[in-house]
Amino acid sequence: MAKMLFGVDLGGTTVKMGLFDETGTRLHEWEIPTRKENSGEQILPDIAASIRETVKERGISEADVLGVGIGVPGAVDAAGTVLQAVNLGWKNKAAGHELSQLTGYPVAVGNDANVAALGEAWQGGGKGFQNLLLVTLGTGVGGGIIVDGRILTGATGAGGEIGHIHLEDHETEPCGCGRYGCFEEYASATGAVRVAKRVLMETAEESTLRGKEFTCKDLFDAAAAGDAVAKQATEKYGDYLGKGLAVCASVLNPEAIVLGGGVTKAGEVLFDLLMPSFERCVFPGCADVVWKLATLGNQAGIVGAAKLILDRVEG
Amino acid sequence: MAKMLFGVDLGGTTVKMGLFDETGTRLHEWEIPTRKENSGEQILPDIAASIRETVKERGISEADVLGVGIGVPGAVDAAGTVLQAVNLGWKNKAAGHELSQLTGYPVAVGNDANVAALGEAWQGGGKGFQNLLLVTLGTGVGGGIIVDGRILTGATGAGGEIGHIHLEDHETEPCGCGRYGCFEEYASATGAVRVAKRVLMETAEESTLRGKEFTCKDLFDAAAAGDAVAKQATEKYGDYLGKGLAVCASVLNPEAIVLGGGVTKAGEVLFDLLMPSFERCVFPGCADVVWKLATLGNQAGIVGAAKLILDRVEG
Repeated sequence: MAKMLFGVDLGGTTVKMGLFDETGTRLHEWEIPTRKENSGEQILPDIAASIRETVKERGISEADVLGVGIGVPGAVDAAGTVLQAVNLGWKNKAAGHELSQLTGYPVAVGNDANVAALGEAWQGGGKGFQNLLLVTLGTGVGGGIIVDGRILTGATGAGGEIGHIHLEDHETEPCGCGRYGCFEEYASATGAVRVAKRVLMETAEESTLRGKEFTCKDLFDAAAAGDAVAKQATEKYGDYLGKGLAVCASVLNPEAIVLGGGVTKAGEVLFDLLMPSFERCVFPGCADVVWKLATLGNQAGIVGAAKLILDRVEG
Repeated sequence: MAKMLFGVDLGGTTVKMGLFDETGTRLHEWEIPTRKENSGEQILPDIAASIRETVKERGISEADVLGVGIGVPGAVDAAGTVLQAVNLGWKNKAAGHELSQLTGYPVAVGNDANVAALGEAWQGGGKGFQNLLLVTLGTGVGGGIIVDGRILTGATGAGGEIGHIHLEDHETEPCGCGRYGCFEEYASATGAVRVAKRVLMETAEESTLRGKEFTCKDLFDAAAAGDAVAKQATEKYGDYLGKGLAVCASVLNPEAIVLGGGVTKAGEVLFDLLMPSFERCVFPGCADVVWKLATLGNQAGIVGAAKLILDRVEG
């Protein structure tokens, strides 16, 4: 029988879980609620119980289970200890050790954004590339870096947190991280709206966006419909996006950059918008990047978690 | 007898060579000229002859030689082919394969800046760290990134070329790479002089630097001697340096940053100069960096080359 992997994506509301074979084929997928009471002490027992139940129900032989990978919304050290996961109420929690004790299987733990990047690299938009940057353009900007097929974790699990590279010296509004002028303040969905509001303030030109609240989607829809101010705003958005990605590419020299998250619903136009400033700013030796859209959506987490444990047990 | 490693640092004028044991102890060091005639066809035969001679002279048993590492001034792919090394006249040269044929030993090839970073990580300022950034502040700004003890090579060998991250939108003078506003235009020794000249132009204040050509060393000497304009210029230099390093740290989350190159002759004052803007710009989760000065000088190349082949043969 094929060897089996469990991939777990631990979120603040639900725990997504998947059963995979070694080639990454998804055999089963389900979710359970995240019980956060009492500093989240029930989360790991719940996950372990659900895994054991699945093994039993499906008649899987214990010997065929290679292990469990889990992505966690927080900083994780190399030993699988979650240093801090605010949304779960965890602090210095030896999650890898505990879940291994509870299940009897080997367990690998990673930061959720990094694990999702690994999933896209294995089975999604980055399939076939060993060196890539995944960027999630959502409420914030998340990132994950894959080097020679492995996650770049960094010293404290914050490797690939590219949403907070410094891009603007003269920003007056603080980023969520407390600094000013972070990439995320411009390149996230929220950032796109902020950029557009500033463009609206700088011109008196008519626009369908003027005088009302609007979303990132509204902005891109208005631009697609020919609204000149909205077009100008999406170009400015693309300018920031391309510049930030150029900086990352010049540091990392990736084979591919994979874009995911809500903003990418705008589609391939994003590449047209970011390319002029990317080309202007990137080191020529790093300019030859393959551009891809993420394909796994919110399944990237369970896929990447399965790959995380596969890499661990295979060395 | 201890196992032996050869480390080769191939430069445009001389080839530095070293004999090391597995622990990194340097047993012998010498150099030979780089013969660049006829597209550098004699370079590898010369190196091979010199290695064979050393093995013979020192009575080293063939079985004790683990292999040869070599750092090359150009882009190198994963197979050890030098894609381009302008200074040597090489293009698409299978240097690893050829040198292995010529010597009979395993050979590992890397880009010289990356190999020097590996040397500092193994035996120099970065000793004891597995994740670090080495930055060389010389005529240009070079870099090397070590992740989990290994070089981050990137897709085309340009990983860690941080001298060309985009830092300034409004630069009017081009960088050597053809772009405008690269980190290197401000943070190199040449960049420091450029920054100082601009500060001099913006003020009428008296300065010992005014009205003459000066070097980076002159600038830092003048600042240390109390020249107010020079002090202002070195602070501005530190501002650029801290900002660029903050960007790199926010992407990579290194344990340590090691500074080398001519500018570091200024000493520990560099850290005082760069820290305010580093702290202002870095993602807080990546702020906790250990700062070190490089210690190996121009021996970093041979030391790193020896480590490169050690890692290869040890897997």
